[in-house]
Amino acid sequence: MKPSGIISLLTDFGNRDGYVAAMKAVILGVNPHARVIDISHEVEPQSIKAGAFLLFSQSRFFPAGTVHVAVIDPGVGTNRRLLAVQAAEQFYLAPDNGLLDFCIEAGITQAVEITNESFWRQPVSMTFHGRDILAPVAAHLSLGKSLVEIGKNAEFVRRIPAAKLNLSAREIVGQVVYIDRFGNLITNILSQVLREFAGGDDLEIYFDEKMSCLFRPTYASVGVGAPVAVIGGFDRLEIGVNQGNAATFFGSRIGHAIKVCKK
Amino acid sequence: MKPSGIISLLTDFGNRDGYVAAMKAVILGVNPHARVIDISHEVEPQSIKAGAFLLFSQSRFFPAGTVHVAVIDPGVGTNRRLLAVQAAEQFYLAPDNGLLDFCIEAGITQAVEITNESFWRQPVSMTFHGRDILAPVAAHLSLGKSLVEIGKNAEFVRRIPAAKLNLSAREIVGQVVYIDRFGNLITNILSQVLREFAGGDDLEIYFDEKMSCLFRPTYASVGVGAPVAVIGGFDRLEIGVNQGNAATFFGSRIGHAIKVCKK
Amino acid sequence: MKPSGIISLLTDFGNRDGYVAAMKAVILGVNPHARVIDISHEVEPQSIKAGAFLLFSQSRFFPAGTVHVAVIDPGVGTNRRLLAVQAAEQFYLAPDNGLLDFCIEAGITQAVEITNESFWRQPVSMTFHGRDILAPVAAHLSLGKSLVEIGKNAEFVRRIPAAKLNLSAREIVGQVVYIDRFGNLITNILSQVLREFAGGDDLEIYFDEKMSCLFRPTYASVGVGAPVAVIGGFDRLEIGVNQGNAATFFGSRIGHAIKVCKK
Repeated sequence: MKPSGIISLLTDFGNRDGYVAAMKAVILGVNPHARVIDISHEVEPQSIKAGAFLLFSQSRFFPAGTVHVAVIDPGVGTNRRLLAVQAAEQFYLAPDNGLLDFCIEAGITQAVEITNESFWRQPVSMTFHGRDILAPVAAHLSLGKSLVEIGKNAEFVRRIPAAKLNLSAREIVGQVVYIDRFGNLITNILSQVLREFAGGDDLEIYFDEKMSCLFRPTYASVGVGAPVAVIGGFDRLEIGVNQGNAATFFGSRIGHAIKVCKK
Repeated sequence: MKPSGIISLLTDFGNRDGYVAAMKAVILGVNPHARVIDISHEVEPQSIKAGAFLLFSQSRFFPAGTVHVAVIDPGVGTNRRLLAVQAAEQFYLAPDNGLLDFCIEAGITQAVEITNESFWRQPVSMTFHGRDILAPVAAHLSLGKSLVEIGKNAEFVRRIPAAKLNLSAREIVGQVVYIDRFGNLITNILSQVLREFAGGDDLEIYFDEKMSCLFRPTYASVGVGAPVAVIGGFDRLEIGVNQGNAATFFGSRIGHAIKVCKK
Repeated sequence: MKPSGIISLLTDFGNRDGYVAAMKAVILGVNPHARVIDISHEVEPQSIKAGAFLLFSQSRFFPAGTVHVAVIDPGVGTNRRLLAVQAAEQFYLAPDNGLLDFCIEAGITQAVEITNESFWRQPVSMTFHGRDILAPVAAHLSLGKSLVEIGKNAEFVRRIPAAKLNLSAREIVGQVVYIDRFGNLITNILSQVLREFAGGDDLEIYFDEKMSCLFRPTYASVGVGAPVAVIGGFDRLEIGVNQGNAATFFGSRIGHAIKVCKK
């Protein structure tokens, strides 16, 4: 696969301490022409599930051959592996802790464990492999190096349990899998699954059997402050409040069950 | 107008959820050489007035032919129009909700409603037109497409009421129109207006007739913790506190009246 | 020294108000091909010590010939000087207030006061020299202009008192010099100093004689929630809590004494 010359970064480092800048500096030292795009550095520290969801969801919009580097790495310096995989026409580099679960399931073609130290920055610290290993390796991939040059073939094992989704002719029961900064509740119910279930009928969405809201095309289809379910920017069922915060409104959090019924 | 190859982004999306990265990914898919600069993604959600002020104020520093994309869009998916305009040697793309008011008043040359779907990303979601319509259209403009190719001529209507400014030989009464992260109170009194009014005399600034501060060249012209009025980075009268927070000090907020008198 | 074409920015401006974007816009107006990398804009307002530490620590990873612009400038508009220096194969531009102390000590080759107004943006505001002076001067340096062209030779005076470090055969007493967003306590005890002191022996770290933790290779060498001292990403002794916050755990802040003993 031809590299796009683009490298994306997703971490839980925040933007305050310059850790991300050090990674970019190392990348540009190897490939001065790399285009580096930040996906997010505001993932909650050590929140691998949220990072894995964002990485999968947002990396899909990048040109084929982009190298995505994800660093949420509570096990840094232990013997956890570092993986490089090709999946769905993208490259992904990350610790083997679940960050790549959703990307790999979308269609893995090849996976290696990153072992070839000749592409690493020296000396390699015990606490910042994102800067010393993943950043330079990503830069080399963006220049056309292949996965077989940077490591050895590796097995992939799923690390994050799948979010439950029960689908019958009568209802769908899914879960909140991500909450964005607006407080929108993103679920594991994909737009296509929802459309096939609805078949043109009106839908009603339930939380805890007690609270409900209607399914509408846009947030603005309901009054300001009212809850509404829409197909959101993640192409999934999400619950929002028009110009408000659904996480606060419903007291909901990740893992909360969401039931979809025909009206 | 020749494009500069630069695209700026201003949104209320925050930097946590990767929405901005998805816009950049779509842009680079259309124009791999575009330079993308973030103006701000920390505008308070749905705060169109603050966004309109920032867009106008900071876009003036960009090279001619830059494409500015602004997305604060509570009406996304409704029948509100998306506009593309050329004003003051820059291109601006935004929903027709007031975001462009100040830019357009600075000297509009052309305005179109964005209607040519052949430049859009498909499928177009109902909830994220920034990514699916504005981002790819901006990328095409940055490659040299013209406004007439992306839409049809449109009328422009002001959406945000002008902030009141009363000017007499004796005093100027203006308003706080923006508060920055340092708590500096930015007003609608431009430096040129102030200089002509002062004509070399000393000035005194009043809040609510009760509190006052002096007009000085710099924040550091007064003691630490003292309030001071200066011509700030927005080239407007602004009230600050040396190494402190004027919004807290004066209990001020957007819309608060500010009176300037000769001493 | 050949410029790398890269310009880094470190400020206390935050990312909300577009001040950083205005600097980037001015840079690209002078050098359309400059690569601009953010080190941090989240330095606590007016916190020169923290900014100086970050600038020194993270700029070391950039390719030789990078231009680093640092703006934490409570004295803006007063007669404080603006400096441009070459040190350790990098260029640095900043107000003469201590921001460059650590960089310069790492090996200064040349220092000038920025005086040549022909490279400045006009008109120069009294309150935003980062945008009007440092940004365009940095862009000119990135294009190959030399320090002698932008100013006149200047003396350098240290502004920040050195953090105390007492080293004996029996113990090292150093200080916390920076606290990152994870709450890790970064000290002024460099890895090399620590290794020579230890000479292979086990080490114990003390706060206030009362609290202690062990020195281990990685955060994950201890249980979740337990404190541990490691050589961190800054290549210094740092104290963390595995998947927790050491600043909260120890109630520590910058300047806190840290004692290292052999076990």
